[in-house]
Amino acid sequence: MSAYASTHGISLRPHAKTHKSLELARLQLEHGAVGLTAAKVSEAEVLSSVCGDLLLAYPVVDENRAGRAAALAGRVDLKVAIDSVHSAQLLSRSAASAGVTVGVLVDLDVGLHRTGVQSADAAVKLAQAIDRLPGLSLSGIFCYPGHIWDATDQQGPALGKVAEQLQQAIDLWKRLGLSTEIVSGGSTPTAYQSHLVPQVTEIRPGTYPYNDMNTVTGGYCSIEDCAARIVVTVVSDAVPDQVVIDAGSKTLAADRCVPDPESGHGYVMEYPAARITKLSEEHGQVDFGACPTRPEVGDRLTVIPNHICPCINLQDTLWLSTRGGQWKPMAVDARGKQG
Amino acid sequence: MSAYASTHGISLRPHAKTHKSLELARLQLEHGAVGLTAAKVSEAEVLSSVCGDLLLAYPVVDENRAGRAAALAGRVDLKVAIDSVHSAQLLSRSAASAGVTVGVLVDLDVGLHRTGVQSADAAVKLAQAIDRLPGLSLSGIFCYPGHIWDATDQQGPALGKVAEQLQQAIDLWKRLGLSTEIVSGGSTPTAYQSHLVPQVTEIRPGTYPYNDMNTVTGGYCSIEDCAARIVVTVVSDAVPDQVVIDAGSKTLAADRCVPDPESGHGYVMEYPAARITKLSEEHGQVDFGACPTRPEVGDRLTVIPNHICPCINLQDTLWLSTRGGQWKPMAVDARGKQG
Repeated sequence: MSAYASTHGISLRPHAKTHKSLELARLQLEHGAVGLTAAKVSEAEVLSSVCGDLLLAYPVVDENRAGRAAALAGRVDLKVAIDSVHSAQLLSRSAASAGVTVGVLVDLDVGLHRTGVQSADAAVKLAQAIDRLPGLSLSGIFCYPGHIWDATDQQGPALGKVAEQLQQAIDLWKRLGLSTEIVSGGSTPTAYQSHLVPQVTEIRPGTYPYNDMNTVTGGYCSIEDCAARIVVTVVSDAVPDQVVIDAGSKTLAADRCVPDPESGHGYVMEYPAARITKLSEEHGQVDFGACPTRPEVGDRLTVIPNHICPCINLQDTLWLSTRGGQWKPMAVDARGKQG
Repeated sequence: MSAYASTHGISLRPHAKTHKSLELARLQLEHGAVGLTAAKVSEAEVLSSVCGDLLLAYPVVDENRAGRAAALAGRVDLKVAIDSVHSAQLLSRSAASAGVTVGVLVDLDVGLHRTGVQSADAAVKLAQAIDRLPGLSLSGIFCYPGHIWDATDQQGPALGKVAEQLQQAIDLWKRLGLSTEIVSGGSTPTAYQSHLVPQVTEIRPGTYPYNDMNTVTGGYCSIEDCAARIVVTVVSDAVPDQVVIDAGSKTLAADRCVPDPESGHGYVMEYPAARITKLSEEHGQVDFGACPTRPEVGDRLTVIPNHICPCINLQDTLWLSTRGGQWKPMAVDARGKQG
């Protein structure tokens, strides 16, 4: 990812929500990331111990989090993506009273319809409001083109539409002399198309250090690129053609595979034809009907989950394989934080 | 639940996987529970500080967990439900070498086809193997009739079939002089039908101290019976007819509502007509199209999740409302344990 971003002159600001580990954050920064992205103020607080340039890719809308964001902006370069005047005013009050400056990006909806103002006009109005408020520094535009990887979508037209929407906003902003220093986009599956949207100056992919069955099935990486694997134990083979593993929704997370929702709940590396048909909390039911043999009770298997982000969020510790062939524990430092 | 069990002369052994909190475990024991159920050896270890009678409702199939189970059996009355000779032999070796006795229940599949031996004959064979092994004490039969609450199922016939399967096994066991002291069943939704399966001596409901939209929609409790509620904040109203709350799959868990999978991802108490249509990790998209008004950015809402067990498993701390009207933190003590 670092090589791709560097080749195309795009800044890489990985989203740390995937791994939540300071050790991986450090590796990303050592490999050329300009800073990190966080989903929560509390996660940004944790990341600030290793990174001085943080983007909070989430609106701050209450006193508690605005105060904490302002305190953080006293220690690091903090930018926040918002989509409401409410957010802008709240952040401004907290920043001004703390005597700091918070960078602000305007969140523009480019098609996913989750957050983000609905038009270039609305974006420019919010940008002007931010530009006038004390304690805030308008940093640019933020978007989340997460929909363009949807297998049911036509990527060409969707990409073109994202570019068009961004350009409209940029043109309006430039006419008013507003800053568009940063135009932030990304997500792992869409990341490698970022150069096709020339307006984007930085990307925020999250999943790429680990990858998962979403990125494999979407065609963005191979099984071998999946670095995070769940070692499970076969606990039952009492039901014909099935084994049960000790990994259910409390281990793998319940997410289906986005590009292929009927593909089951992960990939069993040792038995590619096996299918994890059903998860309960601590049980994974695996259908071995299509396999010539099935493993025995007590055997260990290796599973690649559908969606690595919520899976990692269920763990307190991972085991990292070092180049020397040893295993060392790695904390999921930013898991379970409040706010 | 305690009153129901007591009325029908059934022992109550709550499954602590739902709450994982020692404080609630203590309350359950004070209100007449005969002991507790755990999903993992590590959870049983945590629970052993408040409870001397534990059932591990999960097969133990590796050395690490068998050794820990044996160590635990030195401190408390421990029973384990298993469905393989492999489990029995492993537990026997660990128990014998630790000089302790582990109680064992034979897991009989009564229709859910997850774990459990497939017939009364297979159950009796496993029971005989257990009965002959040192360090083990045959305690009875274990089943999980979790399927009889399925709205697509005919409860009457399913209940009758469970009773018939249990009776077949009990008859065979009695003929051989084997112990059927405990016949363990349950799950919150099926719990209140337990007296209709007279073979069952104890039940293991988990969800009932909190309840959730699964139990509400299934008709087993009312909204007012839902004790665990997620306080969320509206973070965006930029998209028409929608607000976004700061609770996604990393807060509510991604589980659909079993009795009504299309009902969305939880219930918004202040806006009964609102529908949580989509969860991403930290965003919940709520459709307010059917509501006369919608809340504003910064407003607080209260959500009852579909499935409280994986939701609680995502939290480190809950806030307990005391009778005095105060709030005090309550730890999710057994969350995130290994093994």
